[in-house]
Amino acid sequence: MKVVLVEPEIPQNTGNIGRLCVATGVSLIIVGPTGFILNDKKLKRAGMDYWKHLDFTFYPTFEEARAVFDQNDIFLFSPSGKNIYTKGRYSKESILIFGKESMGLDKNILQEFEEKTYFIPMKKEARSLNLANSVAIVLYEALRQIENW
Amino acid sequence: MKVVLVEPEIPQNTGNIGRLCVATGVSLIIVGPTGFILNDKKLKRAGMDYWKHLDFTFYPTFEEARAVFDQNDIFLFSPSGKNIYTKGRYSKESILIFGKESMGLDKNILQEFEEKTYFIPMKKEARSLNLANSVAIVLYEALRQIENW
Repeated sequence: MKVVLVEPEIPQNTGNIGRLCVATGVSLIIVGPTGFILNDKKLKRAGMDYWKHLDFTFYPTFEEARAVFDQNDIFLFSPSGKNIYTKGRYSKESILIFGKESMGLDKNILQEFEEKTYFIPMKKEARSLNLANSVAIVLYEALRQIENW
Repeated sequence: MKVVLVEPEIPQNTGNIGRLCVATGVSLIIVGPTGFILNDKKLKRAGMDYWKHLDFTFYPTFEEARAVFDQNDIFLFSPSGKNIYTKGRYSKESILIFGKESMGLDKNILQEFEEKTYFIPMKKEARSLNLANSVAIVLYEALRQIENW
């Protein structure tokens, strides 16, 4: 399984997500441009000493990243997604794609893969969840389904 | 449902957890002493403008907080918990209890309620997860079970 962060902006979130990936044995792909330098101290601090255990790849653009994905097994997460995230049928090959903190995934990407878009339900008072929390929720639901503990 | 944070230390985590609680319509209980002042600017920034929607209670000590819990429906989370968190049978009345970032819940509390302790599975390379991520994982599993979206 892979987690893909497209243009992440906040290093603490990426650090926390790296820690989640190490905790679950999942690879992390970051797609640029990022809002910080990838060896940023804050990122390492949030990821702590776990970062060295991380299976990590960087692609400068989404076009370069998508060329290596199996597009049959991708899941795109957005508050405007079509399906509830618990209805996704995840596998060990699944690719879980999340957008930037401020804006989410690009509308063109969401339209192109509309059937593969998913949302995490929430009350309207909270317009969105923290990015690392969103990844945690989805990742552990996927692992629960495949019982890859 | 209620989330209880016992002696939280890092305001950004508590702010993120407040945002999670607003997003899910869940109450937040904080048990002191906390590692920060409860109106800390960072807490408000992480919780953003959602904090005003939060159903929030503070107890100075765990003894005072536990006096108001239905102890039949409590769940305590710890890396050393006895049961996997997905096996908890959550309800709308459940009380989900999390310890401080550095040390988790007090050993005496974990021993007293041993049958009600739960862990989130993770690889040994990551000794623990970020507190807000842990709350997110458990809270959304509980809501998935009761389908209270």
